[in-house]
Amino acid sequence: MDDNQFREAATASIEEIIKYYATLGERPVVSTVEPGYLRKLLPDAAPEKGEAWDLIRSDVEDKIVPGITHWQSPNFFAFFPCPATYPSILGELYSATFAAAAFNWICSPAITELETVVLDWLAQLLGLPDEYLSTGPTFGGGVIHGTASEAVMTMMTAAADKYLRAALAADHPGFATLSEEDQEDLRAARRSKLVALGGGTAHSSAKKAAQVLGLRYRSVPAPAADGYRMTGASLRATLDKVRAAGLEPFFLGTTFGTTDTCAIDDFPSIVKVLDADRDAQVAAGRTAEAADIWVHVDGAYAGSALVAPEQRTSMCPSPSNPEDPSSAPVGTAVLRRFHSFNMNMHKWLLVNFDCSCAFVRDRSWLVNALGADAHYYRNDYSDGGLVTDYRDWQLPLGRRFRSLKMWFVMRTYGGEGLRTYIRRSISLGDRFADALKSRPDLFEIITGSRFALTVFRCAPLTADEPLDVTSARTRRVCELVNSGGKIWVTGTTLDGNVAAIRVMTGNFSTQAEHVDGASKIFVDVAEQVLKEEKTKAS
Amino acid sequence: MDDNQFREAATASIEEIIKYYATLGERPVVSTVEPGYLRKLLPDAAPEKGEAWDLIRSDVEDKIVPGITHWQSPNFFAFFPCPATYPSILGELYSATFAAAAFNWICSPAITELETVVLDWLAQLLGLPDEYLSTGPTFGGGVIHGTASEAVMTMMTAAADKYLRAALAADHPGFATLSEEDQEDLRAARRSKLVALGGGTAHSSAKKAAQVLGLRYRSVPAPAADGYRMTGASLRATLDKVRAAGLEPFFLGTTFGTTDTCAIDDFPSIVKVLDADRDAQVAAGRTAEAADIWVHVDGAYAGSALVAPEQRTSMCPSPSNPEDPSSAPVGTAVLRRFHSFNMNMHKWLLVNFDCSCAFVRDRSWLVNALGADAHYYRNDYSDGGLVTDYRDWQLPLGRRFRSLKMWFVMRTYGGEGLRTYIRRSISLGDRFADALKSRPDLFEIITGSRFALTVFRCAPLTADEPLDVTSARTRRVCELVNSGGKIWVTGTTLDGNVAAIRVMTGNFSTQAEHVDGASKIFVDVAEQVLKEEKTKAS
Repeated sequence: MDDNQFREAATASIEEIIKYYATLGERPVVSTVEPGYLRKLLPDAAPEKGEAWDLIRSDVEDKIVPGITHWQSPNFFAFFPCPATYPSILGELYSATFAAAAFNWICSPAITELETVVLDWLAQLLGLPDEYLSTGPTFGGGVIHGTASEAVMTMMTAAADKYLRAALAADHPGFATLSEEDQEDLRAARRSKLVALGGGTAHSSAKKAAQVLGLRYRSVPAPAADGYRMTGASLRATLDKVRAAGLEPFFLGTTFGTTDTCAIDDFPSIVKVLDADRDAQVAAGRTAEAADIWVHVDGAYAGSALVAPEQRTSMCPSPSNPEDPSSAPVGTAVLRRFHSFNMNMHKWLLVNFDCSCAFVRDRSWLVNALGADAHYYRNDYSDGGLVTDYRDWQLPLGRRFRSLKMWFVMRTYGGEGLRTYIRRSISLGDRFADALKSRPDLFEIITGSRFALTVFRCAPLTADEPLDVTSARTRRVCELVNSGGKIWVTGTTLDGNVAAIRVMTGNFSTQAEHVDGASKIFVDVAEQVLKEEKTKAS
Repeated sequence: MDDNQFREAATASIEEIIKYYATLGERPVVSTVEPGYLRKLLPDAAPEKGEAWDLIRSDVEDKIVPGITHWQSPNFFAFFPCPATYPSILGELYSATFAAAAFNWICSPAITELETVVLDWLAQLLGLPDEYLSTGPTFGGGVIHGTASEAVMTMMTAAADKYLRAALAADHPGFATLSEEDQEDLRAARRSKLVALGGGTAHSSAKKAAQVLGLRYRSVPAPAADGYRMTGASLRATLDKVRAAGLEPFFLGTTFGTTDTCAIDDFPSIVKVLDADRDAQVAAGRTAEAADIWVHVDGAYAGSALVAPEQRTSMCPSPSNPEDPSSAPVGTAVLRRFHSFNMNMHKWLLVNFDCSCAFVRDRSWLVNALGADAHYYRNDYSDGGLVTDYRDWQLPLGRRFRSLKMWFVMRTYGGEGLRTYIRRSISLGDRFADALKSRPDLFEIITGSRFALTVFRCAPLTADEPLDVTSARTRRVCELVNSGGKIWVTGTTLDGNVAAIRVMTGNFSTQAEHVDGASKIFVDVAEQVLKEEKTKAS
């Protein structure tokens, strides 16, 4: 493909893309192809001779697009959003152009340096404490990972390393003077006793991280009675239980906006329990470092809401000790007490997948755990924050130029544009929840709207209607709504047995008319299902 | 940014991109900015109001491009290539447009199904055994990871899981009936004894994977005397050593084309040792499954060469037992004896970073180890190969639509185009090596040209010249060549003390004239350095 062919191909593609977005509202949201549809349409092997772009492009429209579920549709209310905005598309265009493995600074200084700058911009936009800025007092900073899964796996890796260093140094005097093999033996044996904790409503990636890393994992119950969030009391009980079993908790995965209901873990009481636990451990003879449980806050989706200052107190509405207002700072300042935080711009802040922004309070924790031959590569530049080798902040070696799309998006929309968008999403969520609330005969709101997410179920017809009858009705409504093809929503199960429906109004293209359309569909379908039930009963 | 603004912005960007590629040969290859250059050029915070695209685009040219090291330059001879071709850029354009988290099939069936199809195409193009096809006899298949680091980490995770299942079942009768806690205890204790092995010249990602996963790691020596490759004898010695230390080897990382010299591990002798080791373990009472060491073949760079059939015998030139030609198949068929293989299309097969293609002989090994709530999600479709949930083949949950760019590249160039390109790269490598060979007074070839990579050093001036004198001269030549700014090459150290220079001629834009230019620069600089030495001595 030469320059002219590329110009022609790219220009035509851009028109296709504009047309695609313009017609999104008219397409059924979810692909209706059958499993295996594509193999039947494609040859069994790559072509021997090269093919012309026109042929390839028309295959995109004819063969690929029918198999696409349209996440950018204004009628996509499922899961969480996964935005594609024009500036972020342009970011990918340039990023692909400047392709580089970019595993260290000199591989392309701009790739490293833009990342540091825009993550500091983002930290400020979100109101994170200075400790999470590259220029902050604790040598922290941010890094772009592909997904929140990688962020939590990376932090858990660093947490295990930090804990083992501290515990082995404290419990084995002269550890550093032992032979490499003896150190390794002690380390491996000790690691086998470690246990990572995560909220019962935390994302599955926390458990998977532990599974991959070969670490034990325990859920801290977060039942309906606690608002589907982790509380200090539940954490306390879990800590006692794992310690009684001879295990050593080193990592706590908490959530700011759970997947199911956008619940926020109860950070004031969690801090109180963690402080008391640390003090008790130290009183029992452990070092402060070895008694420090790493706390990671996963704000993959809801973290974006922090660009709106009025949303920040939701993270921690009160101090951990009411008698001592300084005991745990409120709002995002509570992150000072924790170790790491991540949010995905690719969920709710207009940057296309993948763009998971992970922040840490002290970057040496990452470099110590993940540096390949760290003693080799460390230098004054790196430690002074002038040169960063991000390969030591992540699992893989090579990395894409992802900061470019963040930069394009932040500049195109500005802080103001991002806040406006978040506030609109949230108010559309309220609009949807209000519509359902006006029909208490049909629906019961379970949570929300919170962060543009409403979770609800069909209303029980009588006070003593068995749970499974209500759940069956809820599932039937969800199924019919989705199979209608106009909108797409997510069905879920809370507390193991309560069927519920999640409706998320955060998509960039979603406007009031689409939300009204969705609530009307729910009302119509719920009425239809009730009629069916009546007919069947009579 | 509305449709018209996007049309205008994208059209202008495309012209910039074409201009960028057209002027690549004239730009110094390596960025010459100082550390911290970009922060000085950018504001301290994101703008409050959105900015116009023209302003952003001009900042790309003025502020970003000076900090770019031009990996696409025809004069980039460093590391390995990292291609950006027009069709792959178009792939990213469409992929960003169809943005989806794509963690399961219904999230966008085309994203899953195209990946399965193009990885089967690729497996055929590379001449992999049928076992690595999704339609093959052992239910294998391929998946696109971001990097080879992720591929090896994923395979090591699966290998540990497979080994532990087999070993625990064999050694603890009734294991499956134990309580979850007791199973976990046995598993954790056993895991602490596992050791992963990797070639002494394997990529750093193997060791880093073990470090992250909390597994022990040992290098199998691959010294100059063995051609910088792992041999069966070296493997045998290492196996004996780790077993004597009470450790259990479960994973062997081998390399087809090492980073330093593109060496190929000695697979015939390795197979022989592995077969004998398995037989001895079984004879000693272990089950065949528990005696099976997972072998991963990392062909991140050189794997691309397999599109040219004449390159395939290099992987395994002879059977492991000469008296029994069926003992280990030659060529790529040896992969039948192994477990997994990966190669990066983003290194030497014209797809832009990231696109690491990982193949496995039995996909259930991945799903067992990486499936989140596997019992929940497994279904007839998945097992029958109709529906694949690739989230269970990788570390993270979400994934990008990367198969699109592979599809565009394979169709645009065809099998023929890809072979032609690989053969041209290889022949340019020979051309470069021949030029150096014509000046034995200046240069000594250490390895190659092999797979377009030539490794050499300055010639010792006398038969007894101390190694460090030759190494100092070599480093000085490398430094001067790079600081000249015309070309960029990589200096390395072999066997811990032999300074060497790597010149890779695999870039898409590199032509004979650029290679001749590079060899001329080396001759000129080497002559200059010799003159300096003489002046200093006199």
